[in-house]
Amino acid sequence: LKVLADTVDAARAIADHGAAFKLLVEIDCGDGRAGVSATGQTLLEIADCLSGSKAARLDGVLTHAGHSYGVNDIPKIQQIAEDERQAVVHAAERLRTAGHAVNTVSAGSTPTALFSQDATGLTEYRAGVYVFFDLDQQSRGVCQTQELALSVLATVIGHNRESSKILLDAGGLALSKDIGANAFRPEVRYGAVVAVDGPALNDVYVTSVSQEHGHVKVTDPALFQRLPVGSRVRILPNHVCMTAAAYPVYNVTDGDTLIDQWDRCNGW
Amino acid sequence: LKVLADTVDAARAIADHGAAFKLLVEIDCGDGRAGVSATGQTLLEIADCLSGSKAARLDGVLTHAGHSYGVNDIPKIQQIAEDERQAVVHAAERLRTAGHAVNTVSAGSTPTALFSQDATGLTEYRAGVYVFFDLDQQSRGVCQTQELALSVLATVIGHNRESSKILLDAGGLALSKDIGANAFRPEVRYGAVVAVDGPALNDVYVTSVSQEHGHVKVTDPALFQRLPVGSRVRILPNHVCMTAAAYPVYNVTDGDTLIDQWDRCNGW
Repeated sequence: LKVLADTVDAARAIADHGAAFKLLVEIDCGDGRAGVSATGQTLLEIADCLSGSKAARLDGVLTHAGHSYGVNDIPKIQQIAEDERQAVVHAAERLRTAGHAVNTVSAGSTPTALFSQDATGLTEYRAGVYVFFDLDQQSRGVCQTQELALSVLATVIGHNRESSKILLDAGGLALSKDIGANAFRPEVRYGAVVAVDGPALNDVYVTSVSQEHGHVKVTDPALFQRLPVGSRVRILPNHVCMTAAAYPVYNVTDGDTLIDQWDRCNGW
Repeated sequence: LKVLADTVDAARAIADHGAAFKLLVEIDCGDGRAGVSATGQTLLEIADCLSGSKAARLDGVLTHAGHSYGVNDIPKIQQIAEDERQAVVHAAERLRTAGHAVNTVSAGSTPTALFSQDATGLTEYRAGVYVFFDLDQQSRGVCQTQELALSVLATVIGHNRESSKILLDAGGLALSKDIGANAFRPEVRYGAVVAVDGPALNDVYVTSVSQEHGHVKVTDPALFQRLPVGSRVRILPNHVCMTAAAYPVYNVTDGDTLIDQWDRCNGW
């Protein structure tokens, strides 16, 4: 079991606990969420805490450039990736200079892992959402729409012609209410609607959700004919991690055929 | 099994299906999501579809004043409740006048069910979130904070003094990203933080979330002493329906003691 710490108090508690924990010191490479500075004294103080532990030992350093999600400019993502690498590699070097063995030098967010131009000194990238991608990543130029591997299969359950809405059986519970892609693609709202078969749907979105219902604003009435009540659509999620968390399994399909089911780990 | 319809096509499909469905015609009482007008011709046409069915039969009418969530003024909620009642009772009366038996006359949203002053003609209220309440309801004056029955138990996992943040192990996965209460209480953000024991915490909120982390903005540094790393807090959710959906069971507590676990139905 590897555990993270970014305070001396936590490191002491880990060192004194008696279990054979491996400690990774979290480094803040600019995200501001958690982690210590790569250049400060706390890094070395945390590592020193482990030197006297009977069972726990220092394994290395870890960082996460979460702020790479905030930009949609590839050169800027490349710069954040280089900042991320330099921070964690510099921290590792300082620890080694101080006499500590450092095995793991871990970096990674999906944007930086994909656009990094230099991985020197790193031992792993922990890119996560790249397995499926989502509209949040697409909106930042990290992937193309056709690369999105996970979608939610939904059914048209109503036509509300008076309010120019198509109703879907997929709402907040089915899609999550994460609207991350809206930062750079405000039209997306709660997800993009694509055809299960036949011609693509252009500019069709889940414009609002309640708990069990999704609403698609209809700007061209031809959409009512294109998507009759009972027809199926696929919804590309804003943030696949949050959406997938609503489901116990992944249904793996090849075209229309279900070829496998993959368990997933839920909870937090 | 009762099914809803608000189109003639759907009613015909139900009538022809062969199963002993009971049909409720959905009435739009002002929410604009789904349902037919209580005064229009479609209501009667839908009911007529069922007259020739071998197995399915008309059971009644149903409405949901979802727009009551959009106001925080009790007299306005009372008016919406009366509009809701009148719409569905009027629809029932029209069906009866046309010769249809109507058993169920169903209305209800939590705000209207609680503040309704007249239930004449109704057979049921389907209030849902009133079982637990949440900050969304509290922000609209529907309940008091001390009436909120469901909270998320979380642990302080970090102090980031440089950015004046306390880190919690509860983020988007634990709380959902529904921020409904923000419409009337913008300070709430992703949830209100309360003490597990001891004095209450005033004006402490989960100000931002990532997937597994929640961040509490610290305006008074005394909060770092009050909530040391490893201490527990309870988070009152914005929208308890979305938050509860992340969990397989309810842990029922009496003070600090776990006295029961209640299964819940997940999915959509």
